[in-house]
Amino acid sequence: MNDKKIEDSATDPLPTLEEALTTVNASLYPKGHLDILSREEVARLRDASAGGMHGLLRNCALAVLTSGAHSDDPNAAANAYPDFDIQVHQQDRGIRIDLINAPGMAFVDGRIIRGIADLLFAVVRDLVYTAIEMGPEYSQELETSAGITDNVFRLLRNARVLKPGDPNLVVCWGGHSIGREEYEYTKQVGYELGLRAMDICTGCGPGAMKGPMKGATIAHAKQRRGSSRYIGLTEPGIIAAESPNPIVNHLVIMPDIEKRLEGFVRMAHGIIVFPGGVGTAEEILYLLGVLLREENRKLPMPLILAGPKSAAAYFEQIDRFIRMTLGEDAASRYEIIVGQPDLVARTMVKGVRAVREYRIANRDSFFFNWAMEIPYEFQVPFDPTHEAMAGLQLHKGRAPQDLAADLRRAFSGIVAGNVKEQGVRRIKEHGPFEIHGDPDIMEAMDHLLRAFVDQRRMKISGEYQPCYRVVR
Amino acid sequence: MNDKKIEDSATDPLPTLEEALTTVNASLYPKGHLDILSREEVARLRDASAGGMHGLLRNCALAVLTSGAHSDDPNAAANAYPDFDIQVHQQDRGIRIDLINAPGMAFVDGRIIRGIADLLFAVVRDLVYTAIEMGPEYSQELETSAGITDNVFRLLRNARVLKPGDPNLVVCWGGHSIGREEYEYTKQVGYELGLRAMDICTGCGPGAMKGPMKGATIAHAKQRRGSSRYIGLTEPGIIAAESPNPIVNHLVIMPDIEKRLEGFVRMAHGIIVFPGGVGTAEEILYLLGVLLREENRKLPMPLILAGPKSAAAYFEQIDRFIRMTLGEDAASRYEIIVGQPDLVARTMVKGVRAVREYRIANRDSFFFNWAMEIPYEFQVPFDPTHEAMAGLQLHKGRAPQDLAADLRRAFSGIVAGNVKEQGVRRIKEHGPFEIHGDPDIMEAMDHLLRAFVDQRRMKISGEYQPCYRVVR
Amino acid sequence: MNDKKIEDSATDPLPTLEEALTTVNASLYPKGHLDILSREEVARLRDASAGGMHGLLRNCALAVLTSGAHSDDPNAAANAYPDFDIQVHQQDRGIRIDLINAPGMAFVDGRIIRGIADLLFAVVRDLVYTAIEMGPEYSQELETSAGITDNVFRLLRNARVLKPGDPNLVVCWGGHSIGREEYEYTKQVGYELGLRAMDICTGCGPGAMKGPMKGATIAHAKQRRGSSRYIGLTEPGIIAAESPNPIVNHLVIMPDIEKRLEGFVRMAHGIIVFPGGVGTAEEILYLLGVLLREENRKLPMPLILAGPKSAAAYFEQIDRFIRMTLGEDAASRYEIIVGQPDLVARTMVKGVRAVREYRIANRDSFFFNWAMEIPYEFQVPFDPTHEAMAGLQLHKGRAPQDLAADLRRAFSGIVAGNVKEQGVRRIKEHGPFEIHGDPDIMEAMDHLLRAFVDQRRMKISGEYQPCYRVVR
Amino acid sequence: MNDKKIEDSATDPLPTLEEALTTVNASLYPKGHLDILSREEVARLRDASAGGMHGLLRNCALAVLTSGAHSDDPNAAANAYPDFDIQVHQQDRGIRIDLINAPGMAFVDGRIIRGIADLLFAVVRDLVYTAIEMGPEYSQELETSAGITDNVFRLLRNARVLKPGDPNLVVCWGGHSIGREEYEYTKQVGYELGLRAMDICTGCGPGAMKGPMKGATIAHAKQRRGSSRYIGLTEPGIIAAESPNPIVNHLVIMPDIEKRLEGFVRMAHGIIVFPGGVGTAEEILYLLGVLLREENRKLPMPLILAGPKSAAAYFEQIDRFIRMTLGEDAASRYEIIVGQPDLVARTMVKGVRAVREYRIANRDSFFFNWAMEIPYEFQVPFDPTHEAMAGLQLHKGRAPQDLAADLRRAFSGIVAGNVKEQGVRRIKEHGPFEIHGDPDIMEAMDHLLRAFVDQRRMKISGEYQPCYRVVR
Repeated sequence: MNDKKIEDSATDPLPTLEEALTTVNASLYPKGHLDILSREEVARLRDASAGGMHGLLRNCALAVLTSGAHSDDPNAAANAYPDFDIQVHQQDRGIRIDLINAPGMAFVDGRIIRGIADLLFAVVRDLVYTAIEMGPEYSQELETSAGITDNVFRLLRNARVLKPGDPNLVVCWGGHSIGREEYEYTKQVGYELGLRAMDICTGCGPGAMKGPMKGATIAHAKQRRGSSRYIGLTEPGIIAAESPNPIVNHLVIMPDIEKRLEGFVRMAHGIIVFPGGVGTAEEILYLLGVLLREENRKLPMPLILAGPKSAAAYFEQIDRFIRMTLGEDAASRYEIIVGQPDLVARTMVKGVRAVREYRIANRDSFFFNWAMEIPYEFQVPFDPTHEAMAGLQLHKGRAPQDLAADLRRAFSGIVAGNVKEQGVRRIKEHGPFEIHGDPDIMEAMDHLLRAFVDQRRMKISGEYQPCYRVVR
Repeated sequence: MNDKKIEDSATDPLPTLEEALTTVNASLYPKGHLDILSREEVARLRDASAGGMHGLLRNCALAVLTSGAHSDDPNAAANAYPDFDIQVHQQDRGIRIDLINAPGMAFVDGRIIRGIADLLFAVVRDLVYTAIEMGPEYSQELETSAGITDNVFRLLRNARVLKPGDPNLVVCWGGHSIGREEYEYTKQVGYELGLRAMDICTGCGPGAMKGPMKGATIAHAKQRRGSSRYIGLTEPGIIAAESPNPIVNHLVIMPDIEKRLEGFVRMAHGIIVFPGGVGTAEEILYLLGVLLREENRKLPMPLILAGPKSAAAYFEQIDRFIRMTLGEDAASRYEIIVGQPDLVARTMVKGVRAVREYRIANRDSFFFNWAMEIPYEFQVPFDPTHEAMAGLQLHKGRAPQDLAADLRRAFSGIVAGNVKEQGVRRIKEHGPFEIHGDPDIMEAMDHLLRAFVDQRRMKISGEYQPCYRVVR
Repeated sequence: MNDKKIEDSATDPLPTLEEALTTVNASLYPKGHLDILSREEVARLRDASAGGMHGLLRNCALAVLTSGAHSDDPNAAANAYPDFDIQVHQQDRGIRIDLINAPGMAFVDGRIIRGIADLLFAVVRDLVYTAIEMGPEYSQELETSAGITDNVFRLLRNARVLKPGDPNLVVCWGGHSIGREEYEYTKQVGYELGLRAMDICTGCGPGAMKGPMKGATIAHAKQRRGSSRYIGLTEPGIIAAESPNPIVNHLVIMPDIEKRLEGFVRMAHGIIVFPGGVGTAEEILYLLGVLLREENRKLPMPLILAGPKSAAAYFEQIDRFIRMTLGEDAASRYEIIVGQPDLVARTMVKGVRAVREYRIANRDSFFFNWAMEIPYEFQVPFDPTHEAMAGLQLHKGRAPQDLAADLRRAFSGIVAGNVKEQGVRRIKEHGPFEIHGDPDIMEAMDHLLRAFVDQRRMKISGEYQPCYRVVR
Repeated sequence: MNDKKIEDSATDPLPTLEEALTTVNASLYPKGHLDILSREEVARLRDASAGGMHGLLRNCALAVLTSGAHSDDPNAAANAYPDFDIQVHQQDRGIRIDLINAPGMAFVDGRIIRGIADLLFAVVRDLVYTAIEMGPEYSQELETSAGITDNVFRLLRNARVLKPGDPNLVVCWGGHSIGREEYEYTKQVGYELGLRAMDICTGCGPGAMKGPMKGATIAHAKQRRGSSRYIGLTEPGIIAAESPNPIVNHLVIMPDIEKRLEGFVRMAHGIIVFPGGVGTAEEILYLLGVLLREENRKLPMPLILAGPKSAAAYFEQIDRFIRMTLGEDAASRYEIIVGQPDLVARTMVKGVRAVREYRIANRDSFFFNWAMEIPYEFQVPFDPTHEAMAGLQLHKGRAPQDLAADLRRAFSGIVAGNVKEQGVRRIKEHGPFEIHGDPDIMEAMDHLLRAFVDQRRMKISGEYQPCYRVVR
């Protein structure tokens, strides 16, 4: 069974051993977005990066510089490069980024790989934007649903991922830790989407976040497609565990998981869910919770759950869990396709076409789904303390979208307990989270989570120790 | 002498009579900068354009839609198209600009000329930026010199005229009302600059603001130069009198004359002053006032006063006025070249190269001259009321830069009295401005102004009625 | 009346006097087409350029290097630069072109202007192509109509002026020696065509060959049109008298006037004839001779005779001459528009659209009018000796297309006698050509020719001495 | 041991089963090179494709349409698509290519994949070029060494693979049938080359012909490199067995193996030899035979034999064979690197730099190695009949380059007997080739060939039946 775990990393050129061991010092002069800054912006950037933001910047930078490395241990890179540092310096001409003891794998003959440099500049750009434009003085703005949406929009625009032009952005969700057969399947689907001129947006890590991009890359090359977009949306808490795969050519660091989810669903013209673990479950529940709202009932949003034949049982399980907790109605919003990657792509293309027509008819923009209502409770960050996790209301009497919101939080907490730095620490200190609720929901949930464990979907490496306890 | 006044409009294809008479209604959907707006931005834009900003927007839009027309009467276009209106409408997809009874000359077979549309979008972009980002809530910021500079920078950046890349931007100043020989000369200089890969920035109206761009266009085409920049910096008060010439491919509407002047000198890698009237004198005095400051003494800034042989006397006059009022030191900052357009270009290229080296040595940016100290008194808008004009301190004992500042204001007021809507109205109501000062300064000034009148540099059309009275 | 002759050169930046006097030595390494040659091709090119082709190459190169100069004296440039030479050298890497004592006006600070270099490479490319691919060993091929057409096609393809893509190429014919009003009109028409996305092809000299390109350039810039084509078709016999204007960005040297005419009509999607002299008359007669053939009766070919109001009489004269000699039928193939440049453009655009539909319906190519039947007698070079001129059959009983062919030859001979080197020499030696024919044709012809003389359409400079004598 | 044979096809998106079974009829209108043809060229193309060339065209087209399929059986595709046909039709507009019963895997939703279409047009282009420009009437030209070289040059230029610009083309040779470890190694080397801005040229099939391209693709994407070249040089005899891999973006069909080899060595700025079978041995012997000539002694040509650690023994064997047959001198022309893909790339980059300097110093072109002397006996096609194979002179007394020539032929014959259609047929009819020579050479050769068989380098599928018999 262990061979199911073999990532295809083996088939990708990997840094040689020598590179992996060396470290490099380098100075970079940002191009593109950070090259025309005012004196004041440079000063704020320098201060922010030296001040409270520094740890975050260091972590994210390290994740990017080890792009393509294979571990979901949030501390792996930090442990491997304990002396790594990043400093942002002011010059009248603009800024200079100094890398100290940086991983040699990001460099060729002493010069940084350009794509890696681009990702690094994206990190600086987004962290600075967040620090400056979403800082404490704007806190009031973040207290309304519209305010948060506006922030998500402006951050994405600042990252230049919002583009006019025909809808073709397919968001792909799924596990970072999947077996080879599932990985090959995600690649195959990406390939079929790419042949049909679709661009790909994922969470930007390995596994199901990489496969579709890789398949699409090959298809885009075959179709001689010029400027394809492989967008990775991540957040500081997860980037260390899921370092951006090397295909990503647009990286955006959203401030937290909730804004990342909002970014996904507002940019998506269609969504495909591949097999995954708790993170994927969180994503499905978030989306269904939103789509089930009365205001969004007529909003078209192609949603396909897809996997290889071997994943048929997995999707049955998910399907059963959703029907049981959220009702049959929820199940009507998605389609399950087993195998047949070309059918997945054809179905998606048809759905995207419907989205296009709807947007035109409703004079909505192509690049941002303003019309989708996302309630404040889905937007506000959930901090999975033991107390918060224990306080979730997983009862059947609740409105489906409310129950979906709390179920989403439950899964979100488990992701944190599994792979996020702070979550891992909390579990180490206080033991597993306790999750309460109606017995049948609890049973279904337990069942689902156990299956994830059995199928090794929780973590890439090592034996999995559950970070939660379902209390029936 | 009258034939000196013939603009070269005759040699440029002009709208046919039929087009000149017709008006068109049209809806435009902005591309480029205004196409990815948040819902809130769209709403603010719509409100601003319908509210206090509406008159301004209408005027500037009309100036752009009559681009290439030949009159410096600020009311000419408004009189010709009394029913013209512009409205900005919100749609979820973005904004729609409706033009009502717009001048037919901006359209071909019912479709707007693309370059005109670009200028129009620039107008909307900059007025909105000013209304939103430099509105009352930012007034505090505008109370410091650094704050104003920062605003100028951000407005220019927002207009995408700040570009990294080697210094090559030559600012050309000079009159909008010049004779054919002088016009041909400015074209010739622009041609020689263009052959040497220089880009051009002017005040964007006719005459000396158009000639260099036109010459450079031909040279750039001959050199097969791809993406040349013809930047026009204007301001709402002057745009109606000096409507953008059709070569301008980057238009920026600065909020007032002081910020426009700051924009010029901070973007310029070199400046050429062609013959002109009071406006040109204002520009020279502004620049010298700044350069004479101790802090700017070492700052390289190639400054050439250039004109055809027939303009030799004109420059002697200017030179004498400067030496008399600001001293010999001031005269050392510029070079006068008569004739020899290729020498002008070669001298400028050498100067720009020195600027490049200085910026590199001082790690200053290429695209914005942060190092130049511009004191607050040069930045703060001067409102030329009769009282303010009468209060100027034109005495010889003052520090040259201070005297330069007030001389600049004096000329600025006369420009307003000549061609700006409000200024013209004030003169009509209260008679000419009175300007006081030391007798010899007053005499020199009177002399200079009379020469401008004699040489017909004050206004394009009609007999000139002085809007000022020099009180010795 | 003399002021009618003032070319607008004055409004174009001209080489300074200093540049005009200096000469430059330079070595060029061709880019684009001549940069990937086989060893053998390089050797043949070197040999051809040093051998029989050298005089031709020298003449054409000089014409290009003095591009923009204003004289139709075929010896003017040669006289001004008697020591000019061009040599093509072989290097293993390719070829090197050495210019010795070349006109300084083609250079900026010692470096050749890139557009001029491009024209120069075009000269070498086409002369070499002609020397190698249409040399004596291919003479048999040139003995059939299809063979000649194939040659024309391949030469144009080699020059990369045949492009797939929607029909939009308007050929403009008209005099090189026209008055300012007529010149302005051609510019205006070019402007209106350019606003409507038409490209321009002319004989590439001054006057009516430059105006439409210049107008179109301004319009294309206003419409932000990227890669516009200003194609100049010339031939070695005329290039010295009509040196390429500086706007031409595709220059083709056809081997002789007949292939040049075939190139025009097979590439054209529409043709506009502006006022001109005998050369223009030759072009009209060629085209009508071809279109009047039964095989071409259904072929759409928009043909507009256009000029300013002052040219109305001129066109009446031409019209009368055509109706008298070729019949009413011939007159039905063209439309005369006086004034109204926008109407000319709109009519042309409509005509081009019809051409497009016809080609699609008949599966004919857009870029070359294969379907047009051009008989061998129109294709075979006519050498205007005194004997040949005297032998033309200008009788009314002949089929219109045959009469048109001989009329064309008559005018062609007069062009040679006016401005071509060999023709001028012949006239000097043997006196004027004698042209015989039916009295009424002779009278009409005489009338027309006298009018050309009176209107100063024969030559730019000096008093005109007729090179012909109409013998009634 | 069998698992060594697993190609990485599994990790590339493959046509779905459904697509693999379906066939499609389609009409294509060529773009790019075949879109501007004369009437005569179209007619000749149509005739050639319908006449003697038809079988060849059909085979090559089928190879391209099944690009990416995995079999080295030259009849596999033909057997799978027995009803496939291709027809070239004339239209006045140009040509239309009709595909009848074409493999569905080349299409998406009924439309051909653009990259596949490009390869198909390349096939038509090259076969037509060969048929027309290298046909019987040019036979004389092909009887001299210079004539053949000129033909190779013109064919490559016509295919637009000769580009000015800095040397960076690395030719990679190696087996189509290699194990996973070796394949991964070729990919790794390609990756390291790609990181250093090298382009790749191979024989365009699977295995070592695909790996370097794939690795380079990933590296080029990481380095954000725009227009990379993955050139595949093939020939009609081998294309069916080694169908172009889908990464190839420039395909050239050379007329025979000898011209293909000449194309490789004249375009290469450096060559890497990966493990392979007899074909690879043929390539090494060809190159060494050429380089050993006195005239080429000073010519720099970086040549690296490279493979993973497991291939060390393989290269020792090759090395021994070369030293024994061609002498120590031959061995000094190459370097063997085991493992260390980055060292391979760094060594190659250094070598390419030396090539650049040599070419500049000797004024030789970058894009074609004119200076290399290739004797006629290496250029003239060798037809491996049983008689010809038996007549090879494999004796030690011969000059190394002559012996190399015959050894090359021996291996070439075995390749034919293994995978080329005609060769396979001959072996079937007359039994294995007999190869004679000096006992020690024969022994060494036998040893080498047996090793190839043992290591399964002869063929991808099935048990290998030797097509030769070494007669000691």
